[in-house]
Formats: sequence, structure tokens, C-alpha cells
Amino acid sequence: MENGNNHFTNGVHDPSDTKGKVITCRAAVVYGPEEPFVLEDVQVQPPQKMEVRIKILFTSICHTDLSAWKGESVAQRAYPRILGHEASGIVESVGEGVTDVREGDKVVPIFNGECGECDCCKCPKTNICTNFGVNPMKTVMAGDGTSRFTNKEGKPIYHFLNTSTFSQFTVLDSACVVKIDSDDSHLKKMTLLSCGVSTGVGAAWNTANVQSGSKVAIFGLGSVGLAVAEGARARGASKIIGVDINPSKFSKGRTMGVTDFINPTELEKPLHEKIREMSKGGVDYSFEWVGNVDVLREAFLSTHEGWGFTVVLGIHPSPKMFPIHPMEFFAGRGITGSIFGGFKGKTQLPHFAKECMRGVVELDKFITHELPFDKINEAFQLLMDGQSLRCLLHL
Amino acid sequence: MENGNNHFTNGVHDPSDTKGKVITCRAAVVYGPEEPFVLEDVQVQPPQKMEVRIKILFTSICHTDLSAWKGESVAQRAYPRILGHEASGIVESVGEGVTDVREGDKVVPIFNGECGECDCCKCPKTNICTNFGVNPMKTVMAGDGTSRFTNKEGKPIYHFLNTSTFSQFTVLDSACVVKIDSDDSHLKKMTLLSCGVSTGVGAAWNTANVQSGSKVAIFGLGSVGLAVAEGARARGASKIIGVDINPSKFSKGRTMGVTDFINPTELEKPLHEKIREMSKGGVDYSFEWVGNVDVLREAFLSTHEGWGFTVVLGIHPSPKMFPIHPMEFFAGRGITGSIFGGFKGKTQLPHFAKECMRGVVELDKFITHELPFDKINEAFQLLMDGQSLRCLLHL
Repeated sequence: MENGNNHFTNGVHDPSDTKGKVITCRAAVVYGPEEPFVLEDVQVQPPQKMEVRIKILFTSICHTDLSAWKGESVAQRAYPRILGHEASGIVESVGEGVTDVREGDKVVPIFNGECGECDCCKCPKTNICTNFGVNPMKTVMAGDGTSRFTNKEGKPIYHFLNTSTFSQFTVLDSACVVKIDSDDSHLKKMTLLSCGVSTGVGAAWNTANVQSGSKVAIFGLGSVGLAVAEGARARGASKIIGVDINPSKFSKGRTMGVTDFINPTELEKPLHEKIREMSKGGVDYSFEWVGNVDVLREAFLSTHEGWGFTVVLGIHPSPKMFPIHPMEFFAGRGITGSIFGGFKGKTQLPHFAKECMRGVVELDKFITHELPFDKINEAFQLLMDGQSLRCLLHL
Repeated sequence: MENGNNHFTNGVHDPSDTKGKVITCRAAVVYGPEEPFVLEDVQVQPPQKMEVRIKILFTSICHTDLSAWKGESVAQRAYPRILGHEASGIVESVGEGVTDVREGDKVVPIFNGECGECDCCKCPKTNICTNFGVNPMKTVMAGDGTSRFTNKEGKPIYHFLNTSTFSQFTVLDSACVVKIDSDDSHLKKMTLLSCGVSTGVGAAWNTANVQSGSKVAIFGLGSVGLAVAEGARARGASKIIGVDINPSKFSKGRTMGVTDFINPTELEKPLHEKIREMSKGGVDYSFEWVGNVDVLREAFLSTHEGWGFTVVLGIHPSPKMFPIHPMEFFAGRGITGSIFGGFKGKTQLPHFAKECMRGVVELDKFITHELPFDKINEAFQLLMDGQSLRCLLHL
């Protein structure tokens, strides 16, 4: 408790010990592209105005963390940094002006915030937030342009994606904190609502609006693609075609509702022709989670003329443009992107959480591994090796 | 009445004289790209199974006729041919199996048919018809693969766009004939529902779903662009920005509800920046009726992030692709094409016609000229010179 600090060493925590004080706790810090995470003590400042400090109980790893860890986008490199954006935890304390969450609330962080005040937040048609939207370049808190993390030498450690959940405590803008009405037994799996499962299920439910009897094709059967399948299954889709060049994805896909599999490397005709054949003219909805424009083009052409709709989910790092001629729009196919499954986080995620708790969407199927926090490098390896869908880290 | 023919020479017509017989009447025939129309006698066969023969009373000229007359698309050239697709008239006789229209019914032809039986016709999300959709390559009747028109030498004359209305009588598939509940005083203006006005107003109403208070930008203030404005005005749009490099379009635009004008040749900043400024972040809907991918790109970027929606209306003859990167879809802007304003012709046009008759959309504003049929070459010149919106020809 030196210098007003509270050293957090185990799972037992009394907020009255820490409120208003700097907390020293363990975090996984990355110092350069693809360098192993260093588990070290960091200092976490108290929340400022409209900020919330959260005790993270569980975190998991998503491909966006992997991409940031690899430093794939040079412009987004910033070190030292605390990555992580899928998590669940408990509010430790709140800053001035925060009224919608309080100490002890169970919460999940959201990287795509909802300020409730910008033009986008006020519009029911979008979940983009002008003030706290997705910005991988952002490294500091919006309020004062500084970090809430420092290392032992007192040097700042950068934030990541409005969240930075690879730390026992983190500070978020209140726009990025969602209260979940969960009992203790469910909180762990609520971690998945921070990103991957919400992104996939929401793409099917909100962005595409898959209906009972719909035909669906999913390009890329990673966690988000499988979450699309789970969402489509829950809505009663009659055909869910999974496309992946890794045949080992197929058995997992079946448990998520995938009814038909295609390995495009085994095809002798264009993929979209095969899918149109299988779906009698084309699927109603296609989802691309590969990040390749040629695959996206196949996804687009796989849908039915007149009403087919393609949802872009994959991150496309290449400067390659999406090849489409304006006259092709007259065939009546539509395309759009989906961020965080179209969910307005603070407004809509609590209801989605309830749906998950009553089993409409089965979150357990996505948790393939669990490890202690200090095994985070191992957890990254599992994801890179395609071994895990979600590995939950216990903090 | 030689050889069972009925020679139609004036406006007086008794169907009992012609039913089941070949009719000889005047038509405007085109013999090659940009060659003047030849007004000559043609023979029109009786309607076959599921076909309808119509006495055309009025026809007008649309840019698609102009494009076909010029032979802009080499693949679509076919001569001799009877062009024309905007018209109104009276059913002269019907072929076997036709039950939804009968002799004496007032009708308008539609180039984008509605068979009612294909997957698209059965789907409420589209007005594309797989069997009688838009096909500028089609030159004969679907039923038997031949033409219903012959010239004096008995040689076939090609059909155009399911309609061929530049003839006192024409034969259409019943899927392309819409009965309109109109009195004689309104039938003339119903001509405009065959294409241009329906295309523009429907793009605003059906494809975009412009609402009261919506902000709209229209790129290209020709007849279709102005019909979009009229549709947006009727729906109560609060701002309708018209963009055209021809400043003479602006005064007409004002009567159709255009509230703001931009001449892009006078701008010192990118067009989309100017429109975003004028509309506080971007318009809700943009419509492109220019047929240029760079303009289309500006239209796309002029809409508001999160929910902006662009409707492609222009014909893009260039092979140039629409420049868009997949990541741009994450900004939440959508884009699609609109054919015939999204109206399912047989199902929805009769109601739209009623709306027009009670003045919700003011058709009279679009009729700038009227000429006798034999002045058709003059009428084309008016359109080419940008003098006319719609010149009605009296047959």
C-alpha cells in the first residue's frame, strides 16, 4: 500500500481497499511485433471522468489480438502495449459522471463503444459510434489523451482497442462497458460476447436478418464463421453451407449447425457455381470471414439474384479493391460490412446475454481451452495453430 | 381487308374487325445505328398463347431507346427493329390463357415483366423476373422464338425490350402488360409509368425507402433523377440536393422538390465533401443516374457513415469497375441497383397509378412536349438536345 498503491496478488479483492488509488497488478505486456508477452506488474490509475476501472476475471484471444501482436499493420504498431479485448469482469470503481454501472456490477468490455450521443448512436440503423468506434490506432484514453497504465519505471503502456483486457485491472470509457445481468456461473462464458460470438451471431441476426428456412453460406469456419453458423442455426436456417480449405473445421462446424461442407481445393468448378447448384439458384445470405477479395467475390456471386445479401466480416489487409462492376448491382445482390454483429453494445448486448444464458446460442461450444493467465503465450500458440476456437484465460 | 388483314388508318378502331387477324398499321422502324426512323406500314400478327395485342395510344421516349437507337452496345444491335417501351393503350385482343386483361382494358406495357411464377416473382424482396426480366438482347417473343412484326416484304422486324411501342399495335407477353384503372383523361399521362417516372419515384420509395425528414442527393437531373426528386418530395424529404453540370436543369429541379443545387464544375473541393458539409455528415440516400463510376464513387461517399445508402440507376457502358475496398463496407454505407424502381409491375403498378391520379406524384410536370407520331425523329432530337423531359407522341 506504499504511495497509495494497492498491490493485487490474488483473486480476493475488496474495492474499498483500492477505490481512488493506483492499483499494482499483473498484466501481459507486448514490447514488439511477435515478441512473447511479458507477465509483469503494472500500475493502473483510477478511472477519470466517465471512465470505469474493471477487475478482469476472464479474457480470451481473438484474431484481432493476434494481428496486433504480429504488428501486421505497421501504422498500428505501438509498444509497450496491453492487448486483449474479449473479457468479463467486475466493476472495481467508476469515475465522475458514470451512472449506468457501479462497483460490483458484472460487466463485459466492448471494443465498439456506444456513447449514446453521436448521430450514429441516435440512429437505429447502425451500431457505429463516432466517439468510441473501432480504432486500432488509438493508444490512449479519449478524455485526457494519456494512458492509465504505467510500468515499474513509471513509463506509460499503451491501450488497445478501447479495452486492454490482458491485465488484472483495466480502465475503459464507460461507453465501452456493458452491464450483464449474470449469475457467477454464467459470467465466465459471457467473455465471448465481447467480440467473436456477438460478431458472428449478430451478423446473422442483425446485419443479414437470417430467417427460418433461409439458406446460408459461410466462407471461413474460424470462430466468427462458426458463430455465424450458430446464429443461423438458432434462427432456423434450412441450409448452412460451410466453406473452408481446412477439412478439420468440418466436424466442429456440424455441431454449430453447418449442414453442408465444401473444401474449395477439391472443386472442379467455380465455388459460386457449386453453391448455386446446392442451393437451387443461390443462397439468401453469404458471410465472408477470410479477408481475401477473391473469396469475397465468390461469396457475393454465391447468393441468389434479386435478393442475395453478402456480409463482409473478414479483415482485408491487402490494398486490393473488391472487383465489382456497377451494372452487377442491377442483379439485385447487396453487400455490406458488419462490425460487432450490428449490436449496439450498451443497448442490445444485455438482452443477447440473456438469450445466451437460456441456451438460444450455446456459448460453451466455443470454449475449447482454459488456461491460467500466465500461460498466455501458450494460448496464442493454440490459436495460431488452429487448435482452439476460444481459450479462456483465468486472471 | 385483303388476306384477312385489317388496315388501321385512324384512331377509330373496332376490335371485332381485327381479333384473330393480322393488322396492318404504322410503325417507326429503325434500320441501323442512328438512322432516322422510317414511318411505314407493318403487319402485326395476332397474339399467341399468353400474349396480348395492344393498340398503342401514346408513347414517349426514354434514354434506353436513345441508347438502342444509337447502337451504343454493339452486341445489342439488331435491325430492322421497332423500339419504344414507354406507352399507354388499350387491349385489342388476348391470346390463349390470358385471363387478367381483356379487350378494351386500359393498360401500360412494362419492360421488366412479372410472370408471377419464378423464384424472384414469388419473393417479396425483388422485382426481378427470371422469365421476363430486362434483356436488351431479346429480339423475339419468348413463346415461339419468332417476331410478331413483318414488313411489306414479309420479313420479320425485331422486338425490343419486351415492348416495342413505336407502333400503332404491338404484341407483348401478358407478363409485361399492366391493367390500369384509369379514366380517359388520365390514360395519356399513365404512359410515364412504363419506365422513367416509376424508375425514379420507385427508387426513392421502394429501393431506398426515403422517409419524411430524409436527406437526399441526386446525381444527374435528367428525367429519372427528377423523378427521384419528385418521389423524395412526395415522401417529405427535408433536403434534396441536385447535382448536374448543366445549370439549366436547376429550374426544373426546383419544381420537383430539389432544395439545393450543386454544379460540380464550380466546386473547389471534392463533391462528397461539399455534400457532407451541406447535410451535416452526409445524406441518408444518394442516387446516381449518370453512368460514370467516378460520379458513383462520389455518390457513395456523400452518404452518412453508418446508414448511408446509394442507389445505382445509371447505365454504365464502360468496363470500368466500381472502385471500392472491402474495408470500406465497415463504414456502414450500403449500395444497390434499382430496376424499374423496385416495383413489381403487375402487382404494384396499379396502386402507384392511383397515387399518381390523386396527385401524390405530379406526372404532368414531366410532359414537356407533345407531337404526332410521325414527328418521332423530332422528338428524339429534343431528347438529345436536353430540351425535353418527356415528349409524348400521339399515335
